[in-house]
Amino acid sequence: MTTSDLPAPGSTARTRIRRLPDKTVTEREVAYAILDAGRLAHVGVVVDGQPYVVPVAFARRGDDAIFHGSSASRLFTTLAAGAPTCLTVTLVDGLVLARSLFESSMHYRSVMALGVPRRLTGEEEVEALLHLSEHLMPGRTAEARHPLPQELKATITLALPLDEISVKVGDGPPDDVPTDLVDEPFASIWAGSVPIREAFGEPLADDQATGVPLPAYVENWGRA
Amino acid sequence: MTTSDLPAPGSTARTRIRRLPDKTVTEREVAYAILDAGRLAHVGVVVDGQPYVVPVAFARRGDDAIFHGSSASRLFTTLAAGAPTCLTVTLVDGLVLARSLFESSMHYRSVMALGVPRRLTGEEEVEALLHLSEHLMPGRTAEARHPLPQELKATITLALPLDEISVKVGDGPPDDVPTDLVDEPFASIWAGSVPIREAFGEPLADDQATGVPLPAYVENWGRA
Repeated sequence: MTTSDLPAPGSTARTRIRRLPDKTVTEREVAYAILDAGRLAHVGVVVDGQPYVVPVAFARRGDDAIFHGSSASRLFTTLAAGAPTCLTVTLVDGLVLARSLFESSMHYRSVMALGVPRRLTGEEEVEALLHLSEHLMPGRTAEARHPLPQELKATITLALPLDEISVKVGDGPPDDVPTDLVDEPFASIWAGSVPIREAFGEPLADDQATGVPLPAYVENWGRA
Repeated sequence: MTTSDLPAPGSTARTRIRRLPDKTVTEREVAYAILDAGRLAHVGVVVDGQPYVVPVAFARRGDDAIFHGSSASRLFTTLAAGAPTCLTVTLVDGLVLARSLFESSMHYRSVMALGVPRRLTGEEEVEALLHLSEHLMPGRTAEARHPLPQELKATITLALPLDEISVKVGDGPPDDVPTDLVDEPFASIWAGSVPIREAFGEPLADDQATGVPLPAYVENWGRA
């Protein structure tokens, strides 16, 4: 995988990708489809010049990315206080085996969002948390217990506006350099791609739920 | 998933996790096993106070994390110039359905490494790149063309020393609050975990490789 270039500071479009134009897709619809297919984001925050990159569960909700953490977390209090962040979601779809190692890469879809998150409170926070739960576990919010006031107090829920986003997609066959398609032995080796897929395994009930029928909504996961 | 706390600036152990002790594993062996099971890292870099989080293919090599990018990338030139970074690898292993949404989470394994990467050159760079390729595509370096001088010139290869690392692992059954195990209707709902697994799909040859037998090393991927 080739990483994206960073634009010059002060550029009006910090997140526009300037290199690898064939791997750049600008449509917001594509970005949202990638975000909606993801569960995990990596969020950056700077403390005393040191970047930290932290995994969070997330969901897109309208034009926001929603994520949450502990009120006791310095990362989250820093973000809630208005620190700039970068939220990146990357889905790896496969390996690309070119005839050269240099042109070998991955199939992937990635969205990067820059901005300042906004802390959600009150009913807005509850709605965002339910949306996040429903994104991660479709059907579950109708059955599981909703957050209590003391749980909300222990939680910082953030909404990052998806104003400044970039998308990168790597797909298709290997992009070999012309000589490798002619010169032996490389011209004759196998080349192509190997998909990587994610699937749900067999659900495992905890001790108290042994014998409780698996909910239909869980059975349907991964069958869409 | 609950995100990690950030220690106080100036702490001698920036990456020690202080909360969620049951999810913290300190052994370096565990960290290395997680890194060795990963392909994708998210790397943070700060430009003018703005954090960027960029996906990179990576491999552990001894006590370093190896990753590479374009010599034309501002991210990579910034890192090569000695900027502090954070490299995070997260593997999602499943969803945890507790009786409350608050206690619901993910099974995951995550490693965070802080430090300043070192640019590799000469034979050291070539060896690191071959190691990276072999990690991502075991067996491939014996067959595919190795990097040419002009390809190395277009590449920045970085080694981040794994001196300052932290590990977080979320596993096991849901950790429900006691009342949810007694109070109806929540005490009677299904609870447990749903694994998420990654698998290789059917390899797809490119046009020129149609009819070329699939290499044995590719056939063996995912069968270990």
